[in-house]
Amino acid sequence: MTHGSIGRNMQRKVIAVLAGAVLLSLVRPTPALAQTPADLKVGIDTMWVLLTASLVFFMNLGFALVESGMCRSKNTVNILSKNFIVFAISSLAFYVLGWGLMFGNGNGFVGLEGLFLLGGADGSPATGDAYAGAYKSIAWTGIPLNAKFFFQLVFAGTAATIVSGSVAERIKYSSFIVFSFLLVAFIYPITGHWIWGGGFLASAGFFDFAGSTVVHSVGGWAALAGILILGPRMGKYGNDGKVNAIPPHSYTSAVIGCFVLWLGWFGFNPGSTMAVDGNAISHIFMTTNTAGMMGLLAATALSWMWDGKPSLGMSINGCLAGLVAITAPCAFVTVPVALLIGVMAGCLVVMAVKLLDKLRIDDPVGAVPVHLFNGVFGTLCVGLFAVDKITGTATGNGLFYGGGMTLLFAQLQGIVAVAVYTLAVSMAFWVAVKMVLGLRVSKAEELEGLDVGEHGEVAYIIGTSRVPEREQVAS
Amino acid sequence: MTHGSIGRNMQRKVIAVLAGAVLLSLVRPTPALAQTPADLKVGIDTMWVLLTASLVFFMNLGFALVESGMCRSKNTVNILSKNFIVFAISSLAFYVLGWGLMFGNGNGFVGLEGLFLLGGADGSPATGDAYAGAYKSIAWTGIPLNAKFFFQLVFAGTAATIVSGSVAERIKYSSFIVFSFLLVAFIYPITGHWIWGGGFLASAGFFDFAGSTVVHSVGGWAALAGILILGPRMGKYGNDGKVNAIPPHSYTSAVIGCFVLWLGWFGFNPGSTMAVDGNAISHIFMTTNTAGMMGLLAATALSWMWDGKPSLGMSINGCLAGLVAITAPCAFVTVPVALLIGVMAGCLVVMAVKLLDKLRIDDPVGAVPVHLFNGVFGTLCVGLFAVDKITGTATGNGLFYGGGMTLLFAQLQGIVAVAVYTLAVSMAFWVAVKMVLGLRVSKAEELEGLDVGEHGEVAYIIGTSRVPEREQVAS
Amino acid sequence: MTHGSIGRNMQRKVIAVLAGAVLLSLVRPTPALAQTPADLKVGIDTMWVLLTASLVFFMNLGFALVESGMCRSKNTVNILSKNFIVFAISSLAFYVLGWGLMFGNGNGFVGLEGLFLLGGADGSPATGDAYAGAYKSIAWTGIPLNAKFFFQLVFAGTAATIVSGSVAERIKYSSFIVFSFLLVAFIYPITGHWIWGGGFLASAGFFDFAGSTVVHSVGGWAALAGILILGPRMGKYGNDGKVNAIPPHSYTSAVIGCFVLWLGWFGFNPGSTMAVDGNAISHIFMTTNTAGMMGLLAATALSWMWDGKPSLGMSINGCLAGLVAITAPCAFVTVPVALLIGVMAGCLVVMAVKLLDKLRIDDPVGAVPVHLFNGVFGTLCVGLFAVDKITGTATGNGLFYGGGMTLLFAQLQGIVAVAVYTLAVSMAFWVAVKMVLGLRVSKAEELEGLDVGEHGEVAYIIGTSRVPEREQVAS
Repeated sequence: MTHGSIGRNMQRKVIAVLAGAVLLSLVRPTPALAQTPADLKVGIDTMWVLLTASLVFFMNLGFALVESGMCRSKNTVNILSKNFIVFAISSLAFYVLGWGLMFGNGNGFVGLEGLFLLGGADGSPATGDAYAGAYKSIAWTGIPLNAKFFFQLVFAGTAATIVSGSVAERIKYSSFIVFSFLLVAFIYPITGHWIWGGGFLASAGFFDFAGSTVVHSVGGWAALAGILILGPRMGKYGNDGKVNAIPPHSYTSAVIGCFVLWLGWFGFNPGSTMAVDGNAISHIFMTTNTAGMMGLLAATALSWMWDGKPSLGMSINGCLAGLVAITAPCAFVTVPVALLIGVMAGCLVVMAVKLLDKLRIDDPVGAVPVHLFNGVFGTLCVGLFAVDKITGTATGNGLFYGGGMTLLFAQLQGIVAVAVYTLAVSMAFWVAVKMVLGLRVSKAEELEGLDVGEHGEVAYIIGTSRVPEREQVAS
Repeated sequence: MTHGSIGRNMQRKVIAVLAGAVLLSLVRPTPALAQTPADLKVGIDTMWVLLTASLVFFMNLGFALVESGMCRSKNTVNILSKNFIVFAISSLAFYVLGWGLMFGNGNGFVGLEGLFLLGGADGSPATGDAYAGAYKSIAWTGIPLNAKFFFQLVFAGTAATIVSGSVAERIKYSSFIVFSFLLVAFIYPITGHWIWGGGFLASAGFFDFAGSTVVHSVGGWAALAGILILGPRMGKYGNDGKVNAIPPHSYTSAVIGCFVLWLGWFGFNPGSTMAVDGNAISHIFMTTNTAGMMGLLAATALSWMWDGKPSLGMSINGCLAGLVAITAPCAFVTVPVALLIGVMAGCLVVMAVKLLDKLRIDDPVGAVPVHLFNGVFGTLCVGLFAVDKITGTATGNGLFYGGGMTLLFAQLQGIVAVAVYTLAVSMAFWVAVKMVLGLRVSKAEELEGLDVGEHGEVAYIIGTSRVPEREQVAS
Repeated sequence: MTHGSIGRNMQRKVIAVLAGAVLLSLVRPTPALAQTPADLKVGIDTMWVLLTASLVFFMNLGFALVESGMCRSKNTVNILSKNFIVFAISSLAFYVLGWGLMFGNGNGFVGLEGLFLLGGADGSPATGDAYAGAYKSIAWTGIPLNAKFFFQLVFAGTAATIVSGSVAERIKYSSFIVFSFLLVAFIYPITGHWIWGGGFLASAGFFDFAGSTVVHSVGGWAALAGILILGPRMGKYGNDGKVNAIPPHSYTSAVIGCFVLWLGWFGFNPGSTMAVDGNAISHIFMTTNTAGMMGLLAATALSWMWDGKPSLGMSINGCLAGLVAITAPCAFVTVPVALLIGVMAGCLVVMAVKLLDKLRIDDPVGAVPVHLFNGVFGTLCVGLFAVDKITGTATGNGLFYGGGMTLLFAQLQGIVAVAVYTLAVSMAFWVAVKMVLGLRVSKAEELEGLDVGEHGEVAYIIGTSRVPEREQVAS
C-alpha cells in the first residue's frame, strides 16, 4: 500500500479499483453516518481520548499507593481515604466551576462563559473556524464535549492529588477536602486558562504540552504553601539539627503505585494530543518512556554513589521526576534529548530531596522535589531544547537549537506568573481553611496515627498465622 | 471540517476535492479489504470492545482485593483463590453452555440454537436484516463472534464473582466452585436471555443498558440465597443481640480493589455500546463517573454524620453503589440526573448495610447492599429518569420526564421476574450443592481460617525485620 | 450493511447512495490527510499497537509482584528493585543496540544496519515492496518507527524480567543489572533476528506468533543458566535429600501480579498483530483466555489430587503456563485446541516444578517450569495443531491437521537452535559477570536478607495498631 509499489501493479489494479469503487458503493450502502471517514475519525479520536483518560484516572491509585507506602502504617487509612475522595471532590469542583473558568470564552485571565454545571452551549464535534460554542479554546479537537471534559477532569484531579502527599500524616481530613475543592475550583483552572484556555501565556508563546506547569508545578506550589504553613511532622527534625528518616511502611505499595503512575503517563502525555496522530503519539510514547527510565537510572546511580547503597525510594522518585520533566516537552524534543532530560531530572530530584531536608521543610513523599522542581525544569527544557514542528506544533526552536532566547523567555515568564499566582492564592486558601477549620490534627492524634483519630479504623490486622506442616519455612 | 466553514472555502475546495477523490483512487489502490470505511469500522469497533472487555476482565482483580481486604487475614488465600478460579470456571461454563442459552435463537425464555462450545454458525460481521446465524439477538453489533463472546463472558464472570463476597469466610472451596459453574451455565444466561437475548422482557420494553439487573442484581439475588442458607459467620451476631464488627484486614487491598473496579466500570458501561459511537461513549463516561463519585461523597458524608467519623469502608461501598446504580441508566439519563442517582445510591448503601445487620444477615463485604439494592434501584431509575433517545436508544421517557408509568412498569416487571427466578433457582442449586458436597467448613476450620483448612497455605509471612541504621524510625 | 440485505433495499438505495456520495464529497471537504481511509488505518493501527504495548509494559508490575510475593519478606525491596530497574536497563540496551541487531537489515544471523541509538533511516509508514529503510523485516506493519520500537521493547523487557525470578533471593543487585543489559543487548536480539528479524529460522518456516520461543524460552534458558551457576538458596535442600518448601511471604502480591500478567497477555498476544484485524484479534483474545483459564483449572485439579489440597501457588503457575504455551500458537490454532493446550500446560507446569526439586535446581518462582518448559511446549504445539491461514498467516497445517512433519520439524529446529545459542552465551555472560563482580551475596547477607544488605532498607514496617472500640474483632 505504498506509493512506490504502484508502478509495478498499476495497470492491473487501476481498472479493478475503479470498477470496485463503484461496486462497493452499491453493495455497501452503509446507511449510518458513522461510515464516512470524517465520522470514523471523530469516533477514533474519542476512543483514544477516553481510553488515555482512563489511564490517567488510574493514576489516582498510583498516587494513593506511593503516598501511603512511603508513610507510616498508622496513617494508611487516612492517606488512602484522602487519595480516594480527592478525585470525587475534583470531579465535583471541576464540573460545577473549574471547567468553565479554564476553557470558557473570556479574557486573557479567566474564562467567563459556560461556567456552571458544564453549562455552555456546544456544537462539538463542530470545530475550527465555524465553532460557535462556549469553549473556543478547546475547539481544536473535534470530539464530543463530554470527552473533552472528562479528559481535562482527570488532569485537574492529578494536580489535587499531588498536594496530598506533601501534607500527609498531619493534616485534618476535613481541611484537606475543603482545600482540594478550592484548588480545583479556583486555582488550577485560572492558571490553566492562561496556558491551555487561550489566555495571556498562550498568546505570549508559552508551551506546555501535557502539563509540567499546568498540572505538576501548580500542584507542587500549592503543596509547598501547605507544608510551609503546616510545619514538619513531629519528630522529623530534632532540636540538635538532626534529620530523622521516617522510612516507608510498605515498599510493595510504593512500587505498585509507581508502576501504575508510569503506565498512567502513557495516557497523560500521548493522550494530550486529544486526537489520533500516529506519528505524534508514537513519538510521545518514546520521549516519555525514555525520560522516565533514565530518571530512574540516574537517581539510582546518584543515590548509590552518595549513600553507598541504591535506595529503592530514590529509584521511584527518579522515575517520577523524569516523567514529570518530560511532560511539557514530550512533543517538542527529540528522543536523545528526552534521554538527557531524564538524566538531569533524576539527579535534580535527589538533590532537591536533600535540599528540602536541609531547609527543614518536611515533604513526606517528595512531592515538591518530584512535581515542583521537575515541573519547572521540564517547562524550561522546552525553551532550551524544542525543535520546531517536530510533531507538528510550531513552537519555534529552543536555545540549543538556534532559536535564541525567545522561547526560553516565554517559558520563564510562564513559570514566574504561575508561581506567583499559585503560591499567593494557595497560601490565602490554606490560611483561610486554618482559621475556619484548623489544619493540623492534635499532637496526641498525630502520635497515635490519623487512622484511629480521623476514621476510627486501622489499615492492617494481620494475624501471626500458624504455618502449616506442608509449608515449613526453611531457615 | 464543519458545515459552517464550508461557505467560506467552498469554491476553491469543491474542485480540489472532486479531482482529489479520483486521484486518490488511483494512487492508493490499497488492495486489502481493510481500507474501506466499512471495514475500518469493524476493526475500530472490535478494538473498542476488546479493550473495554479487558478492563472488565481486570475487575476480577478488583473484586478479589475488595473482598480479601475486607475480610480477615486468615481467610485471604481462600478468598483470593475463589476470585481467581471463578473467572476460569465462568469462562468454561459460558463457553460450553451459557452463551448459547443467552444469545442463541430461541423463544422468549431461553436460547435454543448454537448451544454447545460456542457452536452456532455465524456470519459476523454480517449484521442487520441479512444476519442468518445462530445469535440473532446480538446481530446489532457488527464485530466478529469471538469478540462478542469475550465481551459477554467478562460480564458473566462479574455476576459470579459478586456471589463470592457474600459467602466469604465460611464456604467450602469446592462447593463455591460448583455453584459458580451452575450460576454461569444455568441462571445468569436465562435471565440474560430475557433482557439482552431478545426474550420476553426485551419485548416488554424493559431496558438495562449495561447490567444493573442482568449482572448486578442477578449476582446479588444468588448471593442473598447463599447467605440465607449458609448463615452468619461465627461470632458475628452475639446471643444478646449484639452485632460484632469484623474489620478489614487490609484497607490497602480494599482501596486497590475499588480503584480497579472504578477503572473497570469505564469498560463495563461505555463498552456496552459494543461499537464506537463517539457521542454515546463520551456521555456514558460522564454519567458513570458522576454517579460513582457522588456515591462516594454521599456515603462518606452519611457515615460521618451517623457514626461521628468517616469510614473508608463506607466510602468504598458508596462509590461502588453509585457505579452499580448508574449501570442500567448510564446511556438513558442526563449527567445532572446521574449526579442525583449517585447521591441516592450512596445513601441507600449505608442504610442497607445497617438493615442487613438488623436482620442478622451476614454479608462480609456488603455485596447485597451494593449489587442487589443498587442494582434494583438503578433499574428503577431508568423508569423514573430516562430521556428518550438521549444517546440514540428509543427508551421512551421516564416518569419524571413526562413518560408516565409505561417505562417504570416495564422496569418493575423485569425486576420482579428476575428476582423470582434467580432467588428460586439459586436456592435450589445451593440446597443441592449442600446435600451433595456440604456448603460450610467445620467450626474448627472456620476458627483457624480457611487458608490452612482448604489450601494448606497462609497468606502472609512478614518477618519483623531489623530496621537498618540509615532508616531509623522517628518516634 | 450485509450483502444479503442488499436485495431487499437495493432499488431505493442505489440512487440515494450515488447521489449521497457526490454530495458528501462536497459538504465534507475534510482538508487534512488524516481523513482518507489509508491514513485513518495508520492511526488506528498505531493506537492499537501503543495501547497493547502499554498493557505489556504493565506486565513488569505483574512480574515484580509474582516474584516478590512468592519469596520472603526480607528480600522484597531487592526483588521489587530488580523488577523496577530491569525495564529501564532493557529500554537503554534495546535502544542503543538490541533493536538494530534484531530488526536491522543484515544476514540470516544478525542485523547489521541501523544499529546504534535507533539510528536507521526509516520511511514508515511506507511499507511493502517500496520500503527502503534500515528495518525491512518489520516493514509489514505500516505504523511509525517509534511505535514499532516501543512495542518490541516491551517484549524485550519481558525476557529480561523472567530471569529475575529464578535468580531471586541470592544474586547481587549490581550483577543482575549487568547481566540484564547483556541479555537485552546481545542475546535476545540475536535469536529474535533469526525468527522475527527475517533470519534463518524465519526462512526455514519456523513460526512463533507472539513469542513462546522468542521471549519466554529465551528468558527461561538464560534463567536456567543463571541458577545452574548460582546454586540453590541456603536451606532449600537439606543434606538428607529433604526439600524444604519456602512459602510465599504475600499471596496478595502474587495474585495481584498474576491478574496483571493475565491482563497484560491481552496486549502481548493480540497486539502482536501490530495492526487492527478484527477477526484475528478477536480469535487471539479467545485462544489466549481459553488456554490461560484451562491451565489454571488443570494445575489446580492436579495439585488437589496429588497434594490433597488445591495450592494457590499452583493455580497461579498453571494460569501463567497456559498463557505462555498459547503465545506461539495463539493465531494459528482453533479455540478448542487452545483449551487442550491449556490443560496440557497446566499439567506440565506442576510436573516440571516437582522435577526441578528432584534435580535440586532451585527456582524460587518456577520461572523455568512456566516460561521455559511451556515456551518450548507451546512452540511445538504450532507444529502439532496449526491450521493453515486460520487468521490469515500461511503456516501450513500441523501434524494433527494433515500437514505431516514439515512444520513440526521446523519448530523443533528453532527450539534446538535457540536453546544451544541462548544457553551457551548466557552461560558465558554469567561466568564473566561472576569473575568480574561476583554473582552471589555473602552467606551472612543471604541470611539477613538482601533488603538490608543490598539496599539498606526494609520492605515493611507495619505496627501492631490498637484496634479502636468501634471495630472490635469478633473471635
